[in-house]
Order: sequence, then C-alpha cells, then structure tokens
Amino acid sequence: MIILLEKKAQKVCYDEIIAFLQKEKINYRPIHANERIVIDLSRNVRVLDREKLLSFDGVDKVFTDTEPYRLVSRNFIEENTIIELDLVQIGGETPIVIAGPCSVESEEQILEIALLVKAQGLQILRGGAFKPRTSPYSFQGLRERGLELLGKAREETGLYIITEVVDTKDIPMVAQYADILQVGSRNMRNYELLKAVGRVNKPILLKRSMSATMKEFLLSAEYVMSEGNTQVILCERGIRTFDDFSRNTLDLAIVPATQKITHLPIIVDPSHATGRADLIEPMSMAALAAGAQGLMIEVHPNPPKSFSDADQALDPKQFANLMHRINHYLEWQKAYAKTPHAY
Amino acid sequence: MIILLEKKAQKVCYDEIIAFLQKEKINYRPIHANERIVIDLSRNVRVLDREKLLSFDGVDKVFTDTEPYRLVSRNFIEENTIIELDLVQIGGETPIVIAGPCSVESEEQILEIALLVKAQGLQILRGGAFKPRTSPYSFQGLRERGLELLGKAREETGLYIITEVVDTKDIPMVAQYADILQVGSRNMRNYELLKAVGRVNKPILLKRSMSATMKEFLLSAEYVMSEGNTQVILCERGIRTFDDFSRNTLDLAIVPATQKITHLPIIVDPSHATGRADLIEPMSMAALAAGAQGLMIEVHPNPPKSFSDADQALDPKQFANLMHRINHYLEWQKAYAKTPHAY
Amino acid sequence: MIILLEKKAQKVCYDEIIAFLQKEKINYRPIHANERIVIDLSRNVRVLDREKLLSFDGVDKVFTDTEPYRLVSRNFIEENTIIELDLVQIGGETPIVIAGPCSVESEEQILEIALLVKAQGLQILRGGAFKPRTSPYSFQGLRERGLELLGKAREETGLYIITEVVDTKDIPMVAQYADILQVGSRNMRNYELLKAVGRVNKPILLKRSMSATMKEFLLSAEYVMSEGNTQVILCERGIRTFDDFSRNTLDLAIVPATQKITHLPIIVDPSHATGRADLIEPMSMAALAAGAQGLMIEVHPNPPKSFSDADQALDPKQFANLMHRINHYLEWQKAYAKTPHAY
Amino acid sequence: MIILLEKKAQKVCYDEIIAFLQKEKINYRPIHANERIVIDLSRNVRVLDREKLLSFDGVDKVFTDTEPYRLVSRNFIEENTIIELDLVQIGGETPIVIAGPCSVESEEQILEIALLVKAQGLQILRGGAFKPRTSPYSFQGLRERGLELLGKAREETGLYIITEVVDTKDIPMVAQYADILQVGSRNMRNYELLKAVGRVNKPILLKRSMSATMKEFLLSAEYVMSEGNTQVILCERGIRTFDDFSRNTLDLAIVPATQKITHLPIIVDPSHATGRADLIEPMSMAALAAGAQGLMIEVHPNPPKSFSDADQALDPKQFANLMHRINHYLEWQKAYAKTPHAY
Repeated sequence: MIILLEKKAQKVCYDEIIAFLQKEKINYRPIHANERIVIDLSRNVRVLDREKLLSFDGVDKVFTDTEPYRLVSRNFIEENTIIELDLVQIGGETPIVIAGPCSVESEEQILEIALLVKAQGLQILRGGAFKPRTSPYSFQGLRERGLELLGKAREETGLYIITEVVDTKDIPMVAQYADILQVGSRNMRNYELLKAVGRVNKPILLKRSMSATMKEFLLSAEYVMSEGNTQVILCERGIRTFDDFSRNTLDLAIVPATQKITHLPIIVDPSHATGRADLIEPMSMAALAAGAQGLMIEVHPNPPKSFSDADQALDPKQFANLMHRINHYLEWQKAYAKTPHAY
Repeated sequence: MIILLEKKAQKVCYDEIIAFLQKEKINYRPIHANERIVIDLSRNVRVLDREKLLSFDGVDKVFTDTEPYRLVSRNFIEENTIIELDLVQIGGETPIVIAGPCSVESEEQILEIALLVKAQGLQILRGGAFKPRTSPYSFQGLRERGLELLGKAREETGLYIITEVVDTKDIPMVAQYADILQVGSRNMRNYELLKAVGRVNKPILLKRSMSATMKEFLLSAEYVMSEGNTQVILCERGIRTFDDFSRNTLDLAIVPATQKITHLPIIVDPSHATGRADLIEPMSMAALAAGAQGLMIEVHPNPPKSFSDADQALDPKQFANLMHRINHYLEWQKAYAKTPHAY
Repeated sequence: MIILLEKKAQKVCYDEIIAFLQKEKINYRPIHANERIVIDLSRNVRVLDREKLLSFDGVDKVFTDTEPYRLVSRNFIEENTIIELDLVQIGGETPIVIAGPCSVESEEQILEIALLVKAQGLQILRGGAFKPRTSPYSFQGLRERGLELLGKAREETGLYIITEVVDTKDIPMVAQYADILQVGSRNMRNYELLKAVGRVNKPILLKRSMSATMKEFLLSAEYVMSEGNTQVILCERGIRTFDDFSRNTLDLAIVPATQKITHLPIIVDPSHATGRADLIEPMSMAALAAGAQGLMIEVHPNPPKSFSDADQALDPKQFANLMHRINHYLEWQKAYAKTPHAY
Repeated sequence: MIILLEKKAQKVCYDEIIAFLQKEKINYRPIHANERIVIDLSRNVRVLDREKLLSFDGVDKVFTDTEPYRLVSRNFIEENTIIELDLVQIGGETPIVIAGPCSVESEEQILEIALLVKAQGLQILRGGAFKPRTSPYSFQGLRERGLELLGKAREETGLYIITEVVDTKDIPMVAQYADILQVGSRNMRNYELLKAVGRVNKPILLKRSMSATMKEFLLSAEYVMSEGNTQVILCERGIRTFDDFSRNTLDLAIVPATQKITHLPIIVDPSHATGRADLIEPMSMAALAAGAQGLMIEVHPNPPKSFSDADQALDPKQFANLMHRINHYLEWQKAYAKTPHAY
C-alpha cells in the first residue's frame, strides 16, 4: 500500500502515522513528491488494514498494490511534476532544449559546443563520457577524463550538464560532475542501475529502450521512484521496427499517451531516433507539436569529424536555424494558449 | 529506359521520336506528368541505344532502368506534383484536411457529417462504402448503396468525395461516384488493383501498408504511375510494431523522408494510426509540423454509435476544436515562411 | 448463429430445419465440412431463437455470433480437416512436400523441375504464373502462358499443380489449370479475393501476411470458409521484423499454436521465410519437428539463372539431400508415434 | 590488429613477439582460445606494420580491424568452441538440456527440482536468484539466499549450476556459487557487465536481447571475449514482434545462421520465447532439428504455484515426456549422421 498525505498535512499528522507504523513493525519509506509526502508500504508482505490507515488525520488517499503503476501514476499525483534546476524548469510551461555532442572528444570540442549552446540561450549541455557502443572496438568515450572536461565546460559557461551513467559503481563519480544523470536506452531494463540512481539526489533522464512498451517504460521510471528519487524525466528516442530509411522509428504518439497516465515530464531525442541530420528539424517541430516537454539534440562543430554518430549531428548553422524556428513556434504556442477555443 | 522531354518540347519533337520508336518496333507508352511528357520504354526487353535517344531534339534526359524508383522520383520530376480538383489543391502550399466517417451508414448520417465538414470550410469528404474488415462477420459497408449516398452528399454540399475501391471489377462503379479513389493499406500490395487504378483518370490516394518499407510504398505508387496515372497521393497511416498503447505506430519521419525522394504529395491519417480519439489532435498537429501536405480525419456525429472504428472518431466538438487549432497554426506557418531565417 | 448437425443427421432432419428457416424468411447457407452439414445463419441481422433451433432433431450444437472464430474453430469441428486429392492427403498422418520453381520461366524449365519433383516421389508441383512483385519493372510472370505450361507439366507427369491467383477476374482461368489455388501473403487481406475463392470448388492454400497476427490469419481463412469452401490449407511463410540476416522471420510457434485452435492443416514455406538457400534444410527439419503438416520448397535446375528469388532456391543436389533427410526423419517419427511415452 | 598463432606455435615464438611488442610500446593482451594463443592489439590507436607481424615465426594470421566480428568469427577460429565442464560438453556432438525453475523459491523447491533434473540424466540446473522483473513490485528473487540454496542443491546432487548475474558488483558472489554465469536478455547491451564477466574464468551464457540483430548479439559476445574469456555460450530466447499468441517470437533461423559465422555454441530457451507450456515440446524439438546445441527448459513441481513465469513452466510429467522424446530423437540423429547422404 501507499499512503498519500494531503498537501497541507501537518508534521504532527505525519509523526503520528510513523509512530503507528513503527509500533506495528510495518516497513515504510517516506518519499517527497510534488509538495506532498508519500509513505510507501509496498514492500510489506503481510496484509495491512486500509481502513485503519485512512482513519489518520492528514491522509488523503491510500492506494492498494493492484495497479501496475503507482508512484508514476496521475491517479497518485495529479499535477505535472516539474524538475527544477536553479535557472530552468523541466516539465513546466515552456519546453526546454538540451543540446551538445554525442561524445565529449576534447577540451576544445566541448568548450566550442558549450559556447554554441549558450549562445542560443539554452541552459543544459549534453555530452557522453561513457559511451555504450555496439562494438567493443568502437570509441568507448573518454570516461573519467570526459567527465572532467564536462566539469570544465560547466565552470566556464554556467551550463548544467547531463551525461550518461552505465554502471552502478560509477554513479558517485558521474554524480560529482553531472546535474542530471542519464540512463540510456540500452540500460532501461538494467534494474540494478535504476534502483541505484533512485537513491541519488539528482534528476534522472530515463531513455526508452528500443523495444519497450509504454508500460515497461513507465515501470522502469517506477523503479527509480520506488527508491525515493521522484525527479524522473522520460525520453522517447525511437523504437526498433522493420523501417530502414531511418535508424529507429520515432514513436511520437507515446508523448500524449504517457502524459495521460503519468505526471512525469517527457522529452524527445530526434537525433538518435532518426539517425539522419536532415530529419532532425521536421521531427523536432513534430515532437513539440505533439506536446513534448523538451528536446535533446546532437550538435557538433564539424559532424563528419565526430567520433560517433556523425550522420545525425547538426552543424552550427543547422542548429541555429532549428532554434530560430523553435523560438518562433513557442511564441505562437504561448499566444495560442490564450486564444479562446471553439468549445 | 524512360525519356523525359523538355518542358517546352514541341509536338514536332514528340512526333519524331514516336515515329522512330514505331519504326524500330520499340514498345512505348507516353505519360503526362507535371506539364511534361514522358515516354516510358521500360517494358522492352531488348537493349536500347541511349545515345541515339538523347540525340533527338526536345529530349531532356534519358533514364536507364537501374534505379529502383523512376516515375515517382525527384531525379525524374523535380517539382512537387500538385493534384488539382477545381476548388482545391493537394500538394500545393496549404495542407488540406479531408474528413468524414469511417463508413457510410445511412443517408441521414452521411449528410449530417457532410454539412459538418463543409461548415469547417473543408472541401473533401471521406466515407467508406466498401469496408475491408478483418472478420467476415463485421459490417462490410453498404457497398453500392453507400456509393449512392456519397453521390447524394456530393450533390447537396458540393464536397468532393474520396472512397475506397477494393476490387478491380468495382472500379468503374466507384469511379462514377468518387472524385478520388482510395487504395487502402490492406491492398497496397494488390498489384492488379494498383495497375487497374493506374488506368483511371482520377487521383488515387494510396495508403501505406502496415508492414511496408518506404521503398515498397513508393514502388506501389510507381505501379500506379507506370500505367499512366500520375495523380497519386501518398498516405501514412501507421505501421505495425510491438507497441500496444495505440492501434498502430504512426511513423511521421516518413513524411520528410519521402519528400526528399519523391515529388508526390504525402498526407497523414492519425485516426487509423492511433485508433484513439484522444491522440488525434496532438498527432494531427505533429503531422503538420513534420511537413505533411494534408490530414485525413475520422469524424462522426455520435462516435459510440458508429458501425466501425468507434474508438477513433472525433465527435463534432472535438473536430471543431481541432480545426480551430489547425487554422491558427497554418496562419502562423504562413507568416513564419516569410520570416528571414538564421542562415 | 451457426447450426451444426450431428454427423449422422438424416436428410429429413435437414429438410425440416430448412423448411422452418424458409418459412421464417431467415437467410441461410448450407456448408459441407468434414462429413457434417453446417447451416450458416450468421448474415442475419435480426435476433434468432437459439432454443428453438436446438429443439430440432439432428441438431448437435448452435453457435452464437460472439466467438471471433467460427467455421475455422475446433470448437466447431473437432477432427482435423483432411484435404484429399486422389493420390495425396494434406492434413493426414504424413506431412507432404510441395516443390517447384518460384516462377514458371519456360517449357523446358518447368518440365525439367517437374520430373525432378516426381523423381523424389512427390505429388504436387508449385510454380508461379502470376507473380506479385514489389517493383513494376521486375519480371511479372508468364501469366496465361505460364498456366498453359503448368498444364503441360501436369499432363506429362501426373503431378498436381498449385499456383497463385492475384485477382478475382482471373479465378476461372487459373482454376482451369490448378488443382490448388494459392492466395499469396500480399493478398491475405484482399477480402474480395478471399470471398471469390471461397466459391471455387478446389482447395485453397492461404499464405500468412508478413504482418498478420494469428487471429487475422485465421479470420482470413474464415472468409474463405464462410463462402462455402471448407478446403483451406494455411501456410506460414515468415513475418516482417527487425531481423536482417534473413528475408523474414520464420515464426514456427504458430504451427502448434494454430493447431490448438483450428482443424485446418498448416504447412510451412522456408524458402520465402528465410530467403537463403543455406537455411532451407535446417528450417525444413525444424518445421516438421514443430508439427507442420507439410512444406513448400523452391527448387530450380540452376538457381543463379532463375528469373526471381535466385538466392532462396535449392539446386537439384541440395533438394535431393533435403528429401533424403526428410524421408529418414518421417520414418523415425512414424516409429516414435508407436512408442509408449513416459506418461 | 589481432595476431593468431599457429596451433603448434612454441613458447619461444610467443616470447619473441611479446618482446618486440614491449620494446615498441604496443599495447597487447594475450587470449587463450581453443588451443591457440591470440594476441589482441586492437586497442592500439597507432598504425601497426602488418607485414612485420606476419614475419615472426609461429604466426598463422594477422587480422586487421575492419571486420565487424573478430574473436567470435569462424574466419578467426574455424573449429567449433567446446565448453567443457568435467562431465559435460557444450558445443560438442550431443546437444545438452539445462533445466530448472525460473526462480529459486525455497530449499525444498530447489532440491525437489534438482532431483527431478538429475533423474532425467541431466547435468546442469538453472535457477534464478537475482530476478530482473519489469515491475519493482514483482518478486525480485531470493538474491544471496537463493545463491546459497543453489550451492546446497549442487552439493546434494552434483549438478552444475547456472544462474544470472545482474550487476558488476555481484559478480564475485555469484561466481562463488555458479558454474556458468548467465547474462540475461535485458543486460545483453549492458557492456560494463559484459566486460566484467569477460574477466571471470567461468563460462558465460549470453542471452539475446529481445530486440537484438544477429550482429549486435555476436558483438556482445565479442565484448566478453575481448576481455579474455573465450567460453561464451549464445542463447536465443525469442524476439519482440507484433505477434500476440506467444510472449515472444522464437527466431530459430538464427541458430544455423550464427553457426555459419561463429565458432561459439548456441542453445535455445523455448520457455521464455513462447511463454506457453503447451508450446515447449514442439519448439524444443524444432530447435534441435534446426541444429541447436542445447535447450534451456523451465520446470517446476507445481507450475501454478511458482513465484514467477507460472504459465511457461513444465510440470514433472510434461518434462518427463519431453525428455523421452528428446532422447529418442537424439538417437535417431546419431544414427542418421552415419547414413550416407544423397550427395
């Protein structure tokens, strides 16, 4: 079971419930989510008395364990979760754009791109230090050195850093440099990693596996949340189908479909989804029109010379054109939101 | 081989080439496409002299038979094909919206919807008279009676009619009532039907099969064109994947990807793609943002009572809201097209 | 509703029921299936009195219209359907092997292969006269001339002929030459064709579409049966997935899965499924081990010179080796069937 | 580059090459594979002199780094790799059967099944202690306690143990109890885990991801081998497609297809592939007929009471029947292998 306290529930109510749980030797975990307190009892094997729990002051709802989704569900938290870094909100009114190279390659490269990203008015820089690659003989990332260079880029530009973590043992090191930790699509079902990042006090960007159903995707987010970390950002990046004109099939309908079910924000990565620079702009615009709360875009000063994913990175001019169109579109969207609708 | 004449090639040039082909007993077929004349020699088995053909006056290019795409390709016709009915263009500057019920059910129903569609300022009414259904025990459409009712709706509203044809023998009957003939996704590989509609002098809407690659889709259009009918409209309507939250997976990236390769217009059917009324609006907006040259939307006065596809039809209010948003968006798009870009 | 008469129901019982139906103006169609008479009432819109129908003498069961499968279902006919040509049974105790070229190419070619097939002790020759090809510029089959050559091969060898029909209007012509009519995978959802072959008095081989679920596959067989033709042979030929090492993914589990549900026989085509000659032998053996009631194999005197599907045809030596192994295996299987099992 | 020494290369040859590499400061790693020594230089960035390397005594071949597959490839090692435990060979002449429960549930349960497996003459017991589950609220395995129970089962029955490892940090603990370490399908792209098990001196069973191409599957094996562990067993366990009659689609054609390319053994898991107990027997027989070098089967004393995967476990009678049929079949296969073939 999961107890959801009222928004305005007082500390005394909380203390009373906890005292009861302790006395009854019921295993509990408090979770702070969207201004509310949640008490997770779902790891108890024995049957609990729902009526009793509902009878405490300050209790809003008590969820039983039969729903597939719990912490990620809108049944549970109605309002959108907003992930706040100091200067930027993810899941708020304005969609965000995250940009950067596939891999960190050198100090010069990451600083050049960071300045480019900053010049477009953006706040978050992506860049891979640990690169999960299909072949052991492909470039595996600069690893710790890559993290240091990201740290340097943060220092010099003030940009927030998002970078991938690929093993539980690396989490402390990555968390030292990253503002948002990414769990990549290849690790969406690496449940040990999900549980471990669920114990980190930083937002997690969780990419959909190329073969995950919506339910599996949301349950991977549930893994992170069930360890106490409620700051999860979902990311659609294309699924594997028989299509051969693009690297993966971008499944944009999952954006509005998940937004019905979950309060977590969802963004879109058209670079990995399509694998083709010429499709990034139309698919970015499509993602925003579908309601995506953000985009993650690969950009490189000289795409043909990049160490990985050369075909899908935008060059600086393409990136500037894309940002120009996005900015115009978002202005229209803001204006349209104020228009009285037909019904 | 295929001979492409210059845009301004004179009749005398054409006659000279034809005289040569006849003398040489070369099997030829003239095709009129986008203000040009094309002479298709591709059904000849014997080797032809390309240099000789190039030497005639008025010849622009001579294509050999090694390319997978010929008549559909932009290598062949650079400019966008525009399908013109008197009052409306498909493939022109402004995306079009086609709307109507899944099936024609009764005179009252189709007239009510036709008026609704007209009231939104639209010009084309969709409605199925021949319904290919998975089960022989499901409603199979009103068939000829359905065509008559569509004819009546056209008479009373002036709307153009698009309706599906499912067998070669029905083409003359369907062509009598329809302004555009639809070949449905289940028949995208029914090559006899494609060839037969290729000999009709009306535009053809060709829906992508739920398992077609882009190449197979374009080659099905090539089948139609190779019989002389150059008025082909492509329609993406979702592919079959492991996704289970929606009926099919809407593959929007095929919109810009085909536009690179072909001069034919491509529209999107979010109703069949998603099978969920609540996803129609976001996916319609996404389709337009991706560059789709039109939408095909299912609308019904009372969706829960419709004979087929009840879950995916918009009701009149949802439809009005969608059209309101589309109209605003298209205005913005027109304004943005005039804005100087970053580069 | 569907009325199933008892196996031994007498003509007088049948006549009585029919008299009642006619008096009541109930639309009915009698179907003869596996020694039983079935009276199909499923096209009536009005509600029928099930108790009344059950009360007639000779009535075994009355099925309501809520089941997805009716005529194809084992709920309806328990025993396996056996398709009998004079000399061979499909669906009986011994699996059959059908072999021949992808396309009929010439008199010499088809006769050479027919003799090869006969020399292996087989009774059914496959060969395409109408070839549905992805590109209109690929070889489309010899068409009527191909049928004549198949007729000649039948005359000279006594082999039965199976060949594909691709359009309703060609059925009479194809039926004149073929002992079994094939509906190819591209036409599995061409319901007009299915209904039309449902009115032919010859067995139909129905290939699974590359994107069909089991349910859709069986409902396509239901289309054929619902028109009165109960002689339907199912054929698995691979589905379309992301796999790229073979042309399609051979889905052998559908063999035992459909056998649970339907009384119709199911065979396997490893040639189209894999598209690779080197995988035909292992996948043929696997198909038989999974319980397939037959195989359909492409063989060509000189595969690299064949007009279509060169990569997937066996040459005469490979074919002889395969038949050698199949014959040994079937002997073992027969012996094993007589062994007392563990439980 | 990779240097392959001759089978009979003497120690002095090896020493000479190593001395040269050290002098030149070339980064090298020796790998022992199938009675040969391999010197892996593939992590050097600088260009190496292939002719120079070929000139050393005892060098058989020098592979450049352009092939996608290296250590897994038959170009590299021609003969089949045989994994030897004391009493059993995997990849040898006789296919093996591995059996056991999905999860270890209790001492009583695992011992009961172990005795059942042993009674069938088998040598390897499977059983999950760490269970990667889609939902955090599903049973996650007994974890360390499960390992201890497996250790107990090994002690009491002498069976070898195969069990899954899900995180790099658990490897030492799992390796203490397991004879073969399993990397599950959800972790096939967890490259840090692959590299880590590549440094363990025990055989690794690597399951194909439900969305992996053959190439990705083999490159994951390459990850393990590139760290020095050459004892890799591949396992096909079904891929994710649109099929809905079974849990996954068993892709048996990958068995002969990989055997063309790699020297590593490949086995099949029909339990996870189909998720249906009634399909296990036919698909097991099909897997062996396709050439699989082994099977992995779930068995449970009382499937409906099992903690996980209840629908796919065989009960003891079904298991005995399956083993009876397998044993008969393998005898036939042995006899057939001695038969002179047609060609």
